[in-house]
Amino acid sequence: MRLVDLPTPCLVLDRQKLQGNIRGMAGILARHGVPLRPHMKTAKSIDVARLVLEGQPGGITVSTLAEAEYFASHGIKDILYAVGVTPGKLDQVARLNESGADVTVITDDPLAADAIAAHPAEIKALIEVDCGEQRGGVLVAEDLISELAERLGSRLVGVMTHAGHSYQGRSVAEIAQIAELERSHAVYAAQRLRAEGHKIAIVSAGSSPTGRHAETMTGLTEFRAGVYMLGDLFQAEIETHGRDTIALTVLTSVIGRPGGRVLIDAGALALSKDRSTEAAPTDYGFGLVRDIQGEPALGQAIVRKAYQEHGVVELDPEFPMELPVGTKLRVLPNHACLTAAAHDRYYVVDGTDEVVAVWPRMNGW
Amino acid sequence: MRLVDLPTPCLVLDRQKLQGNIRGMAGILARHGVPLRPHMKTAKSIDVARLVLEGQPGGITVSTLAEAEYFASHGIKDILYAVGVTPGKLDQVARLNESGADVTVITDDPLAADAIAAHPAEIKALIEVDCGEQRGGVLVAEDLISELAERLGSRLVGVMTHAGHSYQGRSVAEIAQIAELERSHAVYAAQRLRAEGHKIAIVSAGSSPTGRHAETMTGLTEFRAGVYMLGDLFQAEIETHGRDTIALTVLTSVIGRPGGRVLIDAGALALSKDRSTEAAPTDYGFGLVRDIQGEPALGQAIVRKAYQEHGVVELDPEFPMELPVGTKLRVLPNHACLTAAAHDRYYVVDGTDEVVAVWPRMNGW
Repeated sequence: MRLVDLPTPCLVLDRQKLQGNIRGMAGILARHGVPLRPHMKTAKSIDVARLVLEGQPGGITVSTLAEAEYFASHGIKDILYAVGVTPGKLDQVARLNESGADVTVITDDPLAADAIAAHPAEIKALIEVDCGEQRGGVLVAEDLISELAERLGSRLVGVMTHAGHSYQGRSVAEIAQIAELERSHAVYAAQRLRAEGHKIAIVSAGSSPTGRHAETMTGLTEFRAGVYMLGDLFQAEIETHGRDTIALTVLTSVIGRPGGRVLIDAGALALSKDRSTEAAPTDYGFGLVRDIQGEPALGQAIVRKAYQEHGVVELDPEFPMELPVGTKLRVLPNHACLTAAAHDRYYVVDGTDEVVAVWPRMNGW
Repeated sequence: MRLVDLPTPCLVLDRQKLQGNIRGMAGILARHGVPLRPHMKTAKSIDVARLVLEGQPGGITVSTLAEAEYFASHGIKDILYAVGVTPGKLDQVARLNESGADVTVITDDPLAADAIAAHPAEIKALIEVDCGEQRGGVLVAEDLISELAERLGSRLVGVMTHAGHSYQGRSVAEIAQIAELERSHAVYAAQRLRAEGHKIAIVSAGSSPTGRHAETMTGLTEFRAGVYMLGDLFQAEIETHGRDTIALTVLTSVIGRPGGRVLIDAGALALSKDRSTEAAPTDYGFGLVRDIQGEPALGQAIVRKAYQEHGVVELDPEFPMELPVGTKLRVLPNHACLTAAAHDRYYVVDGTDEVVAVWPRMNGW
């Protein structure tokens, strides 16, 4: 099967680029001497997980309990569920662990900490620390962090943080500074809790940009990153990786040329309505358009509008193209996590237009 | 099962509101004497289709061939695939029709028209007309419309148009004007082609806003609309329906209160990144937050930020709420078509918090 034969829209995953991205991050972490706990929230695929876990301890990170169920069912046991757990979700975690998984939860909340401590299953927990993003997490200087540790008691096994604000960094130097905030907050929290007598085995931090640009990871016991595997235009814009290493594209067909416009069958569902590059140095609309080989034959053609099933391509005037109805194109996504989530499989290529594998992906909750 | 027991995030569908919306549009169309061909791209559910088809001829509209496959497999035969078809998709249409379906395609393109005419299966086609949106469709004054009719030959059975620009209308009077443009373009195209000797049985138009506000539908043989069934904040803002008739909400749990913030487990995947209300009179961020009963106990609390799995709620200062971790809330969506697409089922309620049914929905391509 070749790309030209595929139904559109669909996801294409370039295995060579994927493996290059995986090797790149693995090499960085090896130099830092810190193991990777890959975040599978972007790829949501056991096939990708197997590639990224080569040479790593074997634990992963997930963003939903549905991901935990999926990966556990495929033999991955050591799972960090890295979104604040509610008391109502603990029974599901307990059932997963009873069936052989080893799911650790996170919390920044006294009520949740009490529920974790009181649950009959011995569910391990990390305290989530805010390293400056102001999303989830307690501040390391607050007394709340000690209170949470007390409430969790023996269930407490470590601390974690995520520098989501690294996505707002607009230079390598700035992201390196945010990486140091991420590292130092996690390490400080661990030191504080150890000084208070708590056993802190896990000091976990991570994001793709900070992984790429951190100067040191001293004191961390593991690093989490996910989107770098597939890559996207936004990550390229903030220099997590080059634009030519984006492994994920949406294959689409030209479905109309009315009035000279270029309509494609990749719209808001196939691409997502993510507009993250709006705030980046280059705004790619809803995605950057390549030819079926993934080559920049269309220059800076972008998807300017996205209706539910229609995309409207704005051509680059320096790259005039005929693009008759039926022409297949590939769109580089703004944000891989959101684009991939509309699709149930990857059509895998290996540097050519031959489809060498179909990898299922899971979605939902 | 009650709402409080459901895993979050998930979709809740209020059947009373759904049925009210369905009755409302059916009543309008009955007064116009025009049958409904409901667009199932929003609901993507056979259970919703059965409700909306009561008292109608039985044909539906879809936006993907996957929807056509799904509804045909559930016994709905008369299907309009209302996105420009590519030559490469005709074999799938032919297979569907061989298996008993009756799928009609649309085109605005000479190459596609030739492929339809040349296909061994006798696939019926409508010519898509542009009534001012400047998305798909030929202009009614262009010679291209006659050329397409000639090329399609006996496969031509009608014309269709969609006033997507009714979504840009900001008053009932303006939407009524756009409705008249939609109607008159379809009727004019039909008259022109009939005068040229073509048999035009189908004159199809529609969108939810123009359905609601059209003053006349004279000359149309069918009307298409979809999002009005579930409703959303954007449609409420442009007065397609009232805000209290939105039948679709996302049930979510509070997952953290760090620094007094309200984090919920409905983020960019569960809600979508659609920001259509940004351009509406009231900007609801990523959605308007209600209590678990769907009541406005939180005033104008909105989801201000949407990360992959985290939403951040901005509370209404006039409605201070405690909202401890685990509290369940419901979020009214900006755009039902996109929000629903991340979910594989509806939990159906009937005016109370009791779940009376679970209706699967299909997604993807």
